[in-house]
Amino acid sequence: MKLYTYFRSSAAFRVRIALNLKGLKYEPVFVHLAKGEHRQPQYAQVNPQALLPTLELDDGTRLTQSLAIIEWLEEKHPTPPLLPKEPLARARVRSLSYLVASEIHPLNNLRVLQHLKRALGQTQDEIDTWYRYWIADGLAKLEAELAGSSGKFCHGDFPGMADCCLVPQIFNAKRYSSDLAPYPTTMRVFDNCMKLEAFDRAQPSKQPDAE
Amino acid sequence: MKLYTYFRSSAAFRVRIALNLKGLKYEPVFVHLAKGEHRQPQYAQVNPQALLPTLELDDGTRLTQSLAIIEWLEEKHPTPPLLPKEPLARARVRSLSYLVASEIHPLNNLRVLQHLKRALGQTQDEIDTWYRYWIADGLAKLEAELAGSSGKFCHGDFPGMADCCLVPQIFNAKRYSSDLAPYPTTMRVFDNCMKLEAFDRAQPSKQPDAE
Repeated sequence: MKLYTYFRSSAAFRVRIALNLKGLKYEPVFVHLAKGEHRQPQYAQVNPQALLPTLELDDGTRLTQSLAIIEWLEEKHPTPPLLPKEPLARARVRSLSYLVASEIHPLNNLRVLQHLKRALGQTQDEIDTWYRYWIADGLAKLEAELAGSSGKFCHGDFPGMADCCLVPQIFNAKRYSSDLAPYPTTMRVFDNCMKLEAFDRAQPSKQPDAE
Repeated sequence: MKLYTYFRSSAAFRVRIALNLKGLKYEPVFVHLAKGEHRQPQYAQVNPQALLPTLELDDGTRLTQSLAIIEWLEEKHPTPPLLPKEPLARARVRSLSYLVASEIHPLNNLRVLQHLKRALGQTQDEIDTWYRYWIADGLAKLEAELAGSSGKFCHGDFPGMADCCLVPQIFNAKRYSSDLAPYPTTMRVFDNCMKLEAFDRAQPSKQPDAE
């Protein structure tokens, strides 16, 4: 398998974690988001959405959207599981995953920050304020969801799809110097994740294309 | 079942369609987003994420995040299916769903538009421009994905999860007078969906709380 990835892409980071958790090897193909390589015509052939990541199977079939890739991995390589078995528990893990993937991350990804600068004329300070605002808004919701649970991870004592989403989001929050003190349960889960080799090895600074 | 809903909530609209497609009855509970009722303490008891929709089961169990609810409906009430059987096909439908739910809608929902106005001082014209920019960006990607397919719906000849996402997004695009001419395949799928009673009955103007 090939994974089209960029060290700082949160969505690619999610899939790197999932592949590592499942013990699946992949060959990275580097697409430099900051240089706009994902908007080049040759990448449009790979991924019509012009987004990272793309997972390319050995027969050339390509999958897009990080959570669709993780659900496919779960269906084709079910062990170890990244979703619980019971439907209500699965719904909870998916809800936590989408809370990160649909409510926080989309507001803070590179193309949005570039648009704030280029089209809205926002200064870097204003962009940083925007970034931290949505981090705080979303992490407060995540903390409210997690605070009642005593598990080591987002759902119980085994890492899963929601943890694949949470960890890259916290990396982003740290990069933008967000105050993480209000989210103790979230940070306990993050710390537990980062003790695992599958998460550690997937982090941006340990990627071959890290700058 | 109870569905906490608001006539103009795209995410609630997705679930209304899915419930209708599966022939499941529900009792609507109206939460007025524009008046901020979702941010009241009593709704935080219902949904810690303070978002719509919430599906409440007869035993009081609550599910959150529209796509997590739809996946749960699919697992518990598999007929008629909203996802194909084959894993790669499922991945495609999920990818199209997330393209709407994670790349377009989060940039244009009410809380973001309110933030643009209140925190960034954007005028209504500027907010409308922002709205249409992300609609155009996302629908171009969706059109690129769909253009190669000849099915009546997003995937094949039966409506599914991706159609539950596409239709509310097109309603939003129309409300903001987006130019939809560049997306003929997307609009063909939209038109096919709207011929179905399950989609028609779920639309904002036909909800009891419509204004």
